[in-house]
Amino acid sequence: MKNLLVDKNSGDNIQVKVRDVIIGAQEKTIISGPCSVESLDTMMKIGRELKALGVHILRGGAFKPRTSPYDFQGLKDDGLRILSTVGKEMNLPIVTEVMDARDIEDVLKYADMLQIGSRNMYNYTLLKEVGKTKAPILLKRGLSATISEWLYAAEYIMAAGNENVVLCERGIRTFESYTRNTLDLNSVAVAKQKYRIPVIVDPSHGTGLRELVSTMSVASIAAGADGLMIESHISPDNSVSDARQTVSMETLGRIMDTVRKLETVL
Amino acid sequence: MKNLLVDKNSGDNIQVKVRDVIIGAQEKTIISGPCSVESLDTMMKIGRELKALGVHILRGGAFKPRTSPYDFQGLKDDGLRILSTVGKEMNLPIVTEVMDARDIEDVLKYADMLQIGSRNMYNYTLLKEVGKTKAPILLKRGLSATISEWLYAAEYIMAAGNENVVLCERGIRTFESYTRNTLDLNSVAVAKQKYRIPVIVDPSHGTGLRELVSTMSVASIAAGADGLMIESHISPDNSVSDARQTVSMETLGRIMDTVRKLETVL
Amino acid sequence: MKNLLVDKNSGDNIQVKVRDVIIGAQEKTIISGPCSVESLDTMMKIGRELKALGVHILRGGAFKPRTSPYDFQGLKDDGLRILSTVGKEMNLPIVTEVMDARDIEDVLKYADMLQIGSRNMYNYTLLKEVGKTKAPILLKRGLSATISEWLYAAEYIMAAGNENVVLCERGIRTFESYTRNTLDLNSVAVAKQKYRIPVIVDPSHGTGLRELVSTMSVASIAAGADGLMIESHISPDNSVSDARQTVSMETLGRIMDTVRKLETVL
Amino acid sequence: MKNLLVDKNSGDNIQVKVRDVIIGAQEKTIISGPCSVESLDTMMKIGRELKALGVHILRGGAFKPRTSPYDFQGLKDDGLRILSTVGKEMNLPIVTEVMDARDIEDVLKYADMLQIGSRNMYNYTLLKEVGKTKAPILLKRGLSATISEWLYAAEYIMAAGNENVVLCERGIRTFESYTRNTLDLNSVAVAKQKYRIPVIVDPSHGTGLRELVSTMSVASIAAGADGLMIESHISPDNSVSDARQTVSMETLGRIMDTVRKLETVL
Repeated sequence: MKNLLVDKNSGDNIQVKVRDVIIGAQEKTIISGPCSVESLDTMMKIGRELKALGVHILRGGAFKPRTSPYDFQGLKDDGLRILSTVGKEMNLPIVTEVMDARDIEDVLKYADMLQIGSRNMYNYTLLKEVGKTKAPILLKRGLSATISEWLYAAEYIMAAGNENVVLCERGIRTFESYTRNTLDLNSVAVAKQKYRIPVIVDPSHGTGLRELVSTMSVASIAAGADGLMIESHISPDNSVSDARQTVSMETLGRIMDTVRKLETVL
Repeated sequence: MKNLLVDKNSGDNIQVKVRDVIIGAQEKTIISGPCSVESLDTMMKIGRELKALGVHILRGGAFKPRTSPYDFQGLKDDGLRILSTVGKEMNLPIVTEVMDARDIEDVLKYADMLQIGSRNMYNYTLLKEVGKTKAPILLKRGLSATISEWLYAAEYIMAAGNENVVLCERGIRTFESYTRNTLDLNSVAVAKQKYRIPVIVDPSHGTGLRELVSTMSVASIAAGADGLMIESHISPDNSVSDARQTVSMETLGRIMDTVRKLETVL
Repeated sequence: MKNLLVDKNSGDNIQVKVRDVIIGAQEKTIISGPCSVESLDTMMKIGRELKALGVHILRGGAFKPRTSPYDFQGLKDDGLRILSTVGKEMNLPIVTEVMDARDIEDVLKYADMLQIGSRNMYNYTLLKEVGKTKAPILLKRGLSATISEWLYAAEYIMAAGNENVVLCERGIRTFESYTRNTLDLNSVAVAKQKYRIPVIVDPSHGTGLRELVSTMSVASIAAGADGLMIESHISPDNSVSDARQTVSMETLGRIMDTVRKLETVL
Repeated sequence: MKNLLVDKNSGDNIQVKVRDVIIGAQEKTIISGPCSVESLDTMMKIGRELKALGVHILRGGAFKPRTSPYDFQGLKDDGLRILSTVGKEMNLPIVTEVMDARDIEDVLKYADMLQIGSRNMYNYTLLKEVGKTKAPILLKRGLSATISEWLYAAEYIMAAGNENVVLCERGIRTFESYTRNTLDLNSVAVAKQKYRIPVIVDPSHGTGLRELVSTMSVASIAAGADGLMIESHISPDNSVSDARQTVSMETLGRIMDTVRKLETVL
């Protein structure tokens, strides 16, 4: 891995601008929202709470990659419209997943940042296509991608012309079954020390257990992460998907308080 | 996992027809050819040898998913034309990988069977799109896909209307580093015993070491596989990609002899 | 890994003699019996059936390594006496696990071959001590031991003076949860091709599912294994431990028939 | 896993006393020293520096479990004597590994705390024997032990009568090869939240790369660890073993400063 665009020596540390939010700057970026967009009403309530807490970017899944073709696949275009409405109302930038290269243009009408999900980290077609836009990209690590494959995935996007890439560590697949995934904070330390790209951590998928999210959020920031993406809901137990790993607004608030205290020490 | 199209009780065992070749019938199907299509001349020589050995389907990569964006990405359309020319000359059906939903129609002008590679097993967009065709699909297992995720990926294709799906076990990612992957023949036994879908094995990727391909081919057939996909070349050491796991025509011939002997016993 | 006693070039292929049974010779060795020794009566019935089927070595656990200290830990000395009684009555050699270096002398009063279990593969104290005896050793692969660590474990025994070592592949720990372990037949091909040590396969632990044992037994022999170790019981569902992976005498008989047919082909 | 001695509801949180040091109390415990004991002179210099930094417990390997029987196996009894001499001189408690149940009594003449290494986590013989002493035990997680197997290993010691057990997370074996192991801080969060046993983290083995030790030390404390075990040396590059993951005294000092700052925030 020599002479890559992602290398420290190929330029300054990358900062990615999502509307007014800068990822990779001193302040840690908090991205939050429900796993799936469910309805305008619920989303508006969630957005209002997140805005009040000082969350920087609103997330929500409109297109959902699901293991079974018979599971809920997301509200799709309706979900995008809901996200966009709430984002405008609350003056919050929006990040949402795109799964199909043919949808990029449409999704960008509503969203400010595109997420490439874990299952699509090796989808080089999709990586090249988002590389042709100038949109900020949130690139999740593949389920069992090595650190070096993940950095090469970022390189696919950057080599296509788009340097606005943020990595997202979300846990890897191991033999351990107590937690949904094994959150690999070594990867954050490696990426931050040796490469010039911002890294955020998703402790929701990284643990799969809401009671661990708070602790692992703090550990992620301590490992050098530039921010967090946390699944939250006004009524976590009633989330349409990923309920077991979704935190309440109260928990999210406490996490943000601790992160802010930590920022002053590190 | 109840009431899936892939379940034994949802219909007869599936047999997939690729021109005159039937995968899932009594005779084991041998698919072979180089990792990448390199030139018309080399491909024609390879095709002639494979035809003489009795290989059933010719494989060759035209679109290559590579970890680095700077590695050789395949001859693309030129590769497809070469494959098609050789296939016609030798009267051999062609299987080749498709990576982009927008390429399906074009690739089907040249190929008889579409391969979904390991990196795209979770690319549900692509699965749904090949599900809209009637083309035979060779669905490789993802690098770290569970057996159940792999069966659900097949279900995505079948639920979209295309039952012509063949699974391909190609080794999974584990801690072991002596071999490139850990060939999981348990998965073949499970799929054959409990589901109605044909399964072939790729011992080339499943070991990464050409000296193990012969032994693991025999083991795969013994585990119940309906066929094999083996990377071969007239000059293995000069293969543009995957040289370390590519066998010679002589080795391939010996493998096919042993497989035939085994068929009479099992 | 150069100049090891286990290397091909350091001597002839090793054959390990367990009373009259030679492991590593042309005939495949079948080791069978229940997971745990339960009672003299049951063990005698099992021994009689196994003898009639032509099984070569009788296995049974007297000292059982269990994840929980509160689970059944085996009949210990009583178990050894039962095993020995049945072995003498049926004229069958006995293999059983030893977990404590201080027990070796005692266990060898009853058993003909010592098993080092997966959990003790890295227990170098125990390896060195069994290396000081001349007893045949069955060395199971650790839960997540690499092939090279496993060969080095054999080397610990051999370097201490005992060359009578047989490797036993029993599946490795991976992300896959459908099967109890992932049976790694690549490891058998590697060990047989590159080292001079016999290898047998345990498809019972390698799958964890009795309905897969038959198929994976055949695949193991096809991969070059010198024999099989299969958990069997006269009443599998009533086994005190590992019932889910224990086969009946009828199944064992069919497996042995197929193995014999396979021997003539390969 | 119900009604275990390790459960929260079976008693107060455990605090383990190693001479005057209390692990599991408010102050974080720092254990440090070289991978192997090399000589009295070097060890004395290291001990002096560690004492000056405020390290609480001195570590050093006298009995070394090594993959190859031909690698350096430690200074054994001489190593123990050196450790003990330095410990007395510097008034520092000593922790060192014991590999053989027959050595426990001897090792306890020199050491204040016994380490059970990763390779022996499933060595139930050894666990039961250290359980018969009252000595503080540092129980490292097995290379690929699940969290629940690790807790059961602690339970083996506790059920034998010794409650003075401290868990040590040291990274697990995964497919990732950039780092030596994948440090699993989820496991720390689980153990601290749901069980009553102290947990320390070994970021040296958990990363295998000295440049990551500092960052991952901080992350470990943030994840709730009660302390750290860090390999250090006065001349890291000249360490007899594990040089690549050994830090200098300067680095160790900086880590301890940051940990102290963190303690005040969390």
